[in-house]
Amino acid sequence: MNWEELAKDLTLQTDSKIVLLVIDGLGGLPVQGKTELETAETNNLDRLALRGTCGLTDPVLMGVTPGSGPAHLGLFGYDPLRHQLGRGILEALGSDVEVKEGDLVARGNFATLRNGLITDRRAGRIPTGECERLCGLLNAAFASRTDPEITLTAGKEHRFVVRFRTAGLADALTDADPQKDGKPPIPTAPLAPEAAKAAAVVNAFLNDVIRILKAETVANAVLLRGFSVQPSIPGLPDLYKLRPAGIANYPMYKGLAKLLGMTTYKVGTETADLFAALEAHYAEHDFFYIHYKKTDAAGEDGAFSAKVRAIEEIDSFIPRIEALKPDVLVVTADHSTPALMHGHSWHPNPFLLVSPTALPDGTGVFTERECGGGLLGRFPSVNAMPLMLAHAGKLKKYGA
Amino acid sequence: MNWEELAKDLTLQTDSKIVLLVIDGLGGLPVQGKTELETAETNNLDRLALRGTCGLTDPVLMGVTPGSGPAHLGLFGYDPLRHQLGRGILEALGSDVEVKEGDLVARGNFATLRNGLITDRRAGRIPTGECERLCGLLNAAFASRTDPEITLTAGKEHRFVVRFRTAGLADALTDADPQKDGKPPIPTAPLAPEAAKAAAVVNAFLNDVIRILKAETVANAVLLRGFSVQPSIPGLPDLYKLRPAGIANYPMYKGLAKLLGMTTYKVGTETADLFAALEAHYAEHDFFYIHYKKTDAAGEDGAFSAKVRAIEEIDSFIPRIEALKPDVLVVTADHSTPALMHGHSWHPNPFLLVSPTALPDGTGVFTERECGGGLLGRFPSVNAMPLMLAHAGKLKKYGA
Repeated sequence: MNWEELAKDLTLQTDSKIVLLVIDGLGGLPVQGKTELETAETNNLDRLALRGTCGLTDPVLMGVTPGSGPAHLGLFGYDPLRHQLGRGILEALGSDVEVKEGDLVARGNFATLRNGLITDRRAGRIPTGECERLCGLLNAAFASRTDPEITLTAGKEHRFVVRFRTAGLADALTDADPQKDGKPPIPTAPLAPEAAKAAAVVNAFLNDVIRILKAETVANAVLLRGFSVQPSIPGLPDLYKLRPAGIANYPMYKGLAKLLGMTTYKVGTETADLFAALEAHYAEHDFFYIHYKKTDAAGEDGAFSAKVRAIEEIDSFIPRIEALKPDVLVVTADHSTPALMHGHSWHPNPFLLVSPTALPDGTGVFTERECGGGLLGRFPSVNAMPLMLAHAGKLKKYGA
Repeated sequence: MNWEELAKDLTLQTDSKIVLLVIDGLGGLPVQGKTELETAETNNLDRLALRGTCGLTDPVLMGVTPGSGPAHLGLFGYDPLRHQLGRGILEALGSDVEVKEGDLVARGNFATLRNGLITDRRAGRIPTGECERLCGLLNAAFASRTDPEITLTAGKEHRFVVRFRTAGLADALTDADPQKDGKPPIPTAPLAPEAAKAAAVVNAFLNDVIRILKAETVANAVLLRGFSVQPSIPGLPDLYKLRPAGIANYPMYKGLAKLLGMTTYKVGTETADLFAALEAHYAEHDFFYIHYKKTDAAGEDGAFSAKVRAIEEIDSFIPRIEALKPDVLVVTADHSTPALMHGHSWHPNPFLLVSPTALPDGTGVFTERECGGGLLGRFPSVNAMPLMLAHAGKLKKYGA
């Protein structure tokens, strides 16, 4: 019996409300003795910490740096070592490509084909506008076809996402990418009998592209990697009997929310837009996932001060959540992104939970080091969901 | 390899003695800033905390509120997500019904049957004396039968426990209970082929009851729920080579102890009786489970002050344990029962361990929040048993 099995038995549908604010990449490392979070002035978060219970969470395993996929899966109670989101699916979500059950998606590159060899796997990093033109051209050529339905969505430079829609597709496929320049293009091959149809569909597509692009000289072939179908993950409504909302202004997080059965809304690009959406839809849901991206973006850029400012910005919106009086309020992160490291890291996430049934632990400052002394101790992110549900009165007793 | 497998290899039979005092439902939540345990004057427990190592334990998973069954299984080192005790078994243990391997037990209600319909599933909540009379009547009617042997034990009001004893019974059975008034009685149905005989035995019993009680007007049928056979759990002697004693004055905990292979004794209803039994049988055993119920009972009643007094009462008996000089003394709880919540909760249990090999962590007050700062940190209850055995010198090295 694991948590996901237990959850189906124990969860109760109630009117209580949970707000989960994910400050992406929040945790950091010291520069001049203080982390980004220790440097930032966060009066509102500090006040919450004093009222609540704190701890530190490990997204996957101590020492393991997670991508956004596993880091978020853990937060929503899905064991990130059992469930995986294919690279293609994440790229599709991040590109705002709508993915339905049964769709097959992959990441694509435009490439240069000369005398039967791939001479440049990135087609000289063609400008994004050129990528958009080529995707448009291919989409027009495939438009008359309804089975399989094929759609390309342009990304930056030579990158795109392709979606195949027809019955019977599977993603046990090898990458259709020679990996090195100077080699002939290679077709995909099925890794399991049930992927035979998908391989045939993809390989026909690869040949069609070469035919359609024969007048092009720079970008006249495509390489595909990371084939994925939508994973069969039970949604939050099924697993927890929640009516969840995902409030994010970056496509990938919106897509992730949708994939997990959350209702998503059109949200503007400003931070205030997240909270306007929360307020507008507060009556309709009992679980709210709010995703704030700027901290992670600054961390990835190695911009310590920008990350400090991003933390101070999100801190200033805390009173708007408090004003709604949720039964449970959790502020945490999916993973750490220390500016010092210019990327995701394995460091644990500060975690704070406020609710009438939370034992205040006297943590008066919301930082990595203070949270380390909190009553929740250090725990796997995957335990956050049972904790939130318990404090919201949404979990029955286990066993007699 | 899990702990249970490891335990068979690593445990040693030695003369050292372990005393585990379980203060049922000990953990609480603040009223006027302090929990029950923080409010209570506990000089003896505080002194132990200063000499020992402290921590907080989660009975099942963070956020999951356990029943008494899973909470105790965890404390004795059985993964409560792998082992489960059926409702019927716990009810039988709680009613002092002796259960042997192969017995099938269930919770029963007397009900009112009129014109082929159950018109009252609780037979108007007949007085307990009436329930005893009816159980006696049925037991007398079944007394001549030896295969199956059928015994009813009266509970409060309309409730009883029934035990079927014959070869080949299994508990994969649906409840024989229409769940709502105004419906005909329903037989049990086997959920697996091996339960076919049990279903036949139970259904014959249900018909016999109606025949035997045909002169009754209020309570003239029975409904049965929670069929369970004794679970196949290895006992503490098998698993750990212990000679364990279970000292409890409530039938359910005594029954649980017996189920796990502990020797149990007739213990009076006073708290002092627990310690008299401990002293009387101290020479005969190397592991002592002492169960104190009053804290949980007060918590369930929402009686904050009564819980404080119960904590102070058990604190006053600590010197009697110390006088025996056990090699390892652990004081903890099975689960929390905050008076504020009028019931079991998921909050972690204060845990303290005193032994010559325990590193004192300076916890000078035995409370939820102080234990949170202890050296043991926050850990699953299922780790308590290996810790106790280790400190008692009863665990060999693992691996070369």
